[in-house]
Amino acid sequence: MYNIDNIDPKKIYDLIIIGTGPSGLGCAIYAARFALDILIIGNLYGGLITTTHIVENYPGIPSISGPELMEKFRDHINSLDIPYIIDEIRTVKKENNIFELKSFFNSFKAKTICFAMGSNHKKLEIPGEEEFGGRGVSYCATCDGPFYKNKIVAVIGGSDSAAKEALYLTQHAKKVIIIYRKDEIRAEPINKQRVLENDKIEIIYNTNIKEIKGNEKVSSLVLDNNNEIKLDAVFIEIGVLPNSNLAKIIGVQTNEKGEIIINKKSETNIPGVFAVGDVADSQFKQAITGVSEGVIAAYSAFDYLKKKKIIY
Amino acid sequence: MYNIDNIDPKKIYDLIIIGTGPSGLGCAIYAARFALDILIIGNLYGGLITTTHIVENYPGIPSISGPELMEKFRDHINSLDIPYIIDEIRTVKKENNIFELKSFFNSFKAKTICFAMGSNHKKLEIPGEEEFGGRGVSYCATCDGPFYKNKIVAVIGGSDSAAKEALYLTQHAKKVIIIYRKDEIRAEPINKQRVLENDKIEIIYNTNIKEIKGNEKVSSLVLDNNNEIKLDAVFIEIGVLPNSNLAKIIGVQTNEKGEIIINKKSETNIPGVFAVGDVADSQFKQAITGVSEGVIAAYSAFDYLKKKKIIY
Repeated sequence: MYNIDNIDPKKIYDLIIIGTGPSGLGCAIYAARFALDILIIGNLYGGLITTTHIVENYPGIPSISGPELMEKFRDHINSLDIPYIIDEIRTVKKENNIFELKSFFNSFKAKTICFAMGSNHKKLEIPGEEEFGGRGVSYCATCDGPFYKNKIVAVIGGSDSAAKEALYLTQHAKKVIIIYRKDEIRAEPINKQRVLENDKIEIIYNTNIKEIKGNEKVSSLVLDNNNEIKLDAVFIEIGVLPNSNLAKIIGVQTNEKGEIIINKKSETNIPGVFAVGDVADSQFKQAITGVSEGVIAAYSAFDYLKKKKIIY
Repeated sequence: MYNIDNIDPKKIYDLIIIGTGPSGLGCAIYAARFALDILIIGNLYGGLITTTHIVENYPGIPSISGPELMEKFRDHINSLDIPYIIDEIRTVKKENNIFELKSFFNSFKAKTICFAMGSNHKKLEIPGEEEFGGRGVSYCATCDGPFYKNKIVAVIGGSDSAAKEALYLTQHAKKVIIIYRKDEIRAEPINKQRVLENDKIEIIYNTNIKEIKGNEKVSSLVLDNNNEIKLDAVFIEIGVLPNSNLAKIIGVQTNEKGEIIINKKSETNIPGVFAVGDVADSQFKQAITGVSEGVIAAYSAFDYLKKKKIIY
């Protein structure tokens, strides 16, 4: 990692990429190959995929853990000597076609920017959720699953991510209860089948939870039918919120979900501003599709700079 | 590989993918995860990328040869037990929303199809080109470069592919002459720089070639200024032609380059027909972007079948 002391605040980069997940790093790899002067800024190295236990759907790599996949990306970044720093951009403005990004202590300038900040886990917003955070309430089975060996845990949600979290948790817990508000889980068929066939998993359909109870730590859940389930932990996996607030500051268009609207070239409505990965409005969000959007954004940034005769 | 004898000609597949390059296999990997009943049909396992000496731009895999990358894809395909056969589809028709694909000896039926047939090398169409094919005229440096150890060879073209072919050839030949019709090569900057800095490479700009001469094998090139260059081999790298003729039979729309027009969902103008990779009209064609298009096509096919209540 590059030290912040090596960053010249007066320098105007060709491209600054905000986000260190697969799509941001995919963008960086190609931008470096295009010989653009780039900087990557992010606050969680590797992005949300590093919380994934097993990735079997990055074509070309049959099976790998999320952290290992991102180590491979880091090797790739390092092989191209690409600078990146850990920092959190708080605001952005555009002046004379130059973008200025500011964190608490630093300021960075660039001719083009790429938003690759991904998304964060949605919260249930019920009593007990915040109180027991880190004490039985978790948004990451891979991170916290091993603490619940032979315990009873719940997964809230019925998406593919929820199914995968539940499957992973069966490796530790003695029982995993999926609680889902609809009448059928909507995981990828391969994962759905694995869930339905797994003896350790029980599914409660058409049900919401009202409250998370406990003392020192989580001890039970109250359902909306007022039934109470005793357990040791609850993993909340009810979707994500795109981290698009920063982009909105300079007028980048978003859809009703808050996702940044991009075209086939990863362009937003503002020239010189690109968006890729989970923060963007692509319907089908996968590591591989985000990486491809990043790659295309690098090409589009290169093309934009060339057409404006800023490079070459 | 599945034997053709195991294929039931009466079976109607959910999805047939035509093409075995990265984009077709990316599509297959996801389609299998969606539990679709699929078949891959192709005539060159791994696609054109298998003729690439070194791939350093598949994010997550810093450096690998084309054939090795496609071995990884094959492992991925095999881990999901996906059937594929080597055959060449000659014609296609649509009847009652079922597509029927025919090769010389076989016939296959599917509810959806994905065109992933990539592209083929363009030819110069000058005297001597066909005559000396395989005897000094080549379209694949990786395949034929090693035959020209300490010889003089030419690369015709100035694209990124041409630059990479030239760089690869310097590992074998004593001299590599790039002949290009424009006044500047248009390779990725990283490769352009490598070419310009390589002592073994000479570039002749603003020049076409008129004829390839030889006896048993290639002995010289005649340029359009009538100069004649003595050499041992000529590698032609002047672009590609998309293999879209099959798609055109059922009215799939193509652009002026013959590429199949797709939207962000990898959909063509015909419902149930998808196209991905080099045969499609994406501006920036890379292995990673083709794979992503394939992945998205699998999702779109799944979505199409679900909405038509053909599956689930």
